Amino acid sequence: MATMQDVARRANVAVSTVSYALSGARPVARATAERIRRVMEELDYQPNAMAQGLARRRAHTLAMSFPAFDTAMGETVFEIVRGAQAAAAELSYHLAVWPVSREGGGEELALIVRQGKADGVLLVEVAVEDPRVEALERAKVPFVLVGRTADPERHAYVDIDFEQAVADAVHALHDLGHKRIAFVGRPESQVASGYGPALRARAGYVQAMQSLRLRPATVSCDASPVAGRLLAAPLLQQEQRPTAVVVLNDMAVMGLVAGLDEMGLSVPEDISVVGAVSSRTLGAMTNPPLSTSHAPGEQMGAYAARALVRLLDDEIKPADCHRLVQCTPVPGRSIGPVPPTFPASSQRRGSHQ
Amino acid sequence: MATMQDVARRANVAVSTVSYALSGARPVARATAERIRRVMEELDYQPNAMAQGLARRRAHTLAMSFPAFDTAMGETVFEIVRGAQAAAAELSYHLAVWPVSREGGGEELALIVRQGKADGVLLVEVAVEDPRVEALERAKVPFVLVGRTADPERHAYVDIDFEQAVADAVHALHDLGHKRIAFVGRPESQVASGYGPALRARAGYVQAMQSLRLRPATVSCDASPVAGRLLAAPLLQQEQRPTAVVVLNDMAVMGLVAGLDEMGLSVPEDISVVGAVSSRTLGAMTNPPLSTSHAPGEQMGAYAARALVRLLDDEIKPADCHRLVQCTPVPGRSIGPVPPTFPASSQRRGSHQ
Repeated sequence: MATMQDVARRANVAVSTVSYALSGARPVARATAERIRRVMEELDYQPNAMAQGLARRRAHTLAMSFPAFDTAMGETVFEIVRGAQAAAAELSYHLAVWPVSREGGGEELALIVRQGKADGVLLVEVAVEDPRVEALERAKVPFVLVGRTADPERHAYVDIDFEQAVADAVHALHDLGHKRIAFVGRPESQVASGYGPALRARAGYVQAMQSLRLRPATVSCDASPVAGRLLAAPLLQQEQRPTAVVVLNDMAVMGLVAGLDEMGLSVPEDISVVGAVSSRTLGAMTNPPLSTSHAPGEQMGAYAARALVRLLDDEIKPADCHRLVQCTPVPGRSIGPVPPTFPASSQRRGSHQ
Repeated sequence: MATMQDVARRANVAVSTVSYALSGARPVARATAERIRRVMEELDYQPNAMAQGLARRRAHTLAMSFPAFDTAMGETVFEIVRGAQAAAAELSYHLAVWPVSREGGGEELALIVRQGKADGVLLVEVAVEDPRVEALERAKVPFVLVGRTADPERHAYVDIDFEQAVADAVHALHDLGHKRIAFVGRPESQVASGYGPALRARAGYVQAMQSLRLRPATVSCDASPVAGRLLAAPLLQQEQRPTAVVVLNDMAVMGLVAGLDEMGLSVPEDISVVGAVSSRTLGAMTNPPLSTSHAPGEQMGAYAARALVRLLDDEIKPADCHRLVQCTPVPGRSIGPVPPTFPASSQRRGSHQ
């Protein structure tokens, strides 16, 4: 059987170059890699991949844990994957996304690392109490959170400042004179399971309202256009009928705007609607375009991947990797001044023109 | 140093059970796995994972190649991931999603398999000429396509019958009296790169129109709400102004409907709009709800994962794994009869009431 030495000799390269070409541990010139590949085929060389792995002790792969394949996802998560993948590639690491659930997913990822398929883990969609975090800590697997647990300081993390993003939306509406500002959040199931963004965004809203001495009114909504659409009527039939709504639920907000239109209400003449922490292009889906804010997903993914590699290299400690990122406003035309009088919900579109 | 035998003895299980718990090759009762894990910690057992891998010669992992993290994705792709993950888990396989590009991605995946990180590959977002397919064939890596190349018969595949889905939409509109039926497809870049769905859907439209002796009119559109919105005006300013539009572009269709609304046109009174091969819930995002059709993504993912494991087990040949799935209609209220006269694009909403 051909050995790695045979391949190196025939391809006229160092043995280490063959090893790098196989492992991806370091970049190898395209033409050289191609020559090595051809020689391996000619000699029918079967790389002793596992033994190799043992020798270098690195899979040069970052595993991203991604429970969100369970539900529909916003574009931000793709930006995170894209940013992490690009940063990993720059450091000669692969990125693989593991669609494991929160329950049992940590154990599965620890196994994956123990099997040499990955070196460390990036955790996305983090819950305040996340069983994956405990499992990875127990297994001594290095990890970086894209999100935060209830007790984040000892972990490496990068997260969106949800509190601030929602508070900004509340203040923008208040500046226009709105006082009855409702909040439409994530699904009740996410609140109950302690999903960080669901809790932090709601907390940010309540805090902002209280600081303005306004009465908070929050409602959960399933992450689907249908649920958003069905919410339009009950939202407006409340005693304290809102003149503005802050929505932290990309899937629902589209349906909500469609539902308001169906009720004959005009945005923003009859009611202002503002999204938060959305994808950059979401706003263009509605008429008028939705005012929202955008999280720098690619930047977050890149930060997380680089931090993980530095943890693997023992260059830093988890407590040194903390970053909270701000959202940037995406202007639309869905917010305006308070309507002079509240229109009755039975009035048809155009009655104010 | 502790051996696997030491772990088995202390945990009071067979050595093979320890091996299964480590490899995930066969299911192990939760309590037993937990006991084994504890004993491994107590003994500070370092599994010779790579050597183990060599012995069993299976990573028990399916790699899914997923170039689409480049662009926004529809819900169908998540359904495919979900279906594949569930089917893989039933067969005691992990599923990892590799966000590699079409160019060079095949080589990267072949390397991953050679390194023992995966056993075979599921290819999503397949181009008619897909360099990943050539690379995997050359490397003799088993794979299943979710999609088809130009020459699909010798490969294992499951794909949506795009031609039929679009033809169904054209015929539904024709039955309502429409003759000027335009087609809004995928981005020009996808057409140029030979992305299967982009080409097949357009071909299905052209064929259906020709079979009805109608003149086809196709337009490409970037996969974004903004692009869809900007398309509304030029689409209606054509000489042969359409009375109906078939859209195979989930990201654009929302923007297109918003753009028509902005122009003062009512759907379906002034123009019918129908989507195709969409997610189940997309329709609720517009007012009126969009008529569309839904592809059975989970079923496709499950079929692909099961087929790949059977290929790995040498139970079947690639040419035995061919499946074309049909979409099911998702009724909405966005299609109606041909308007009696074509409204001028300057007319405002409500002028027909």
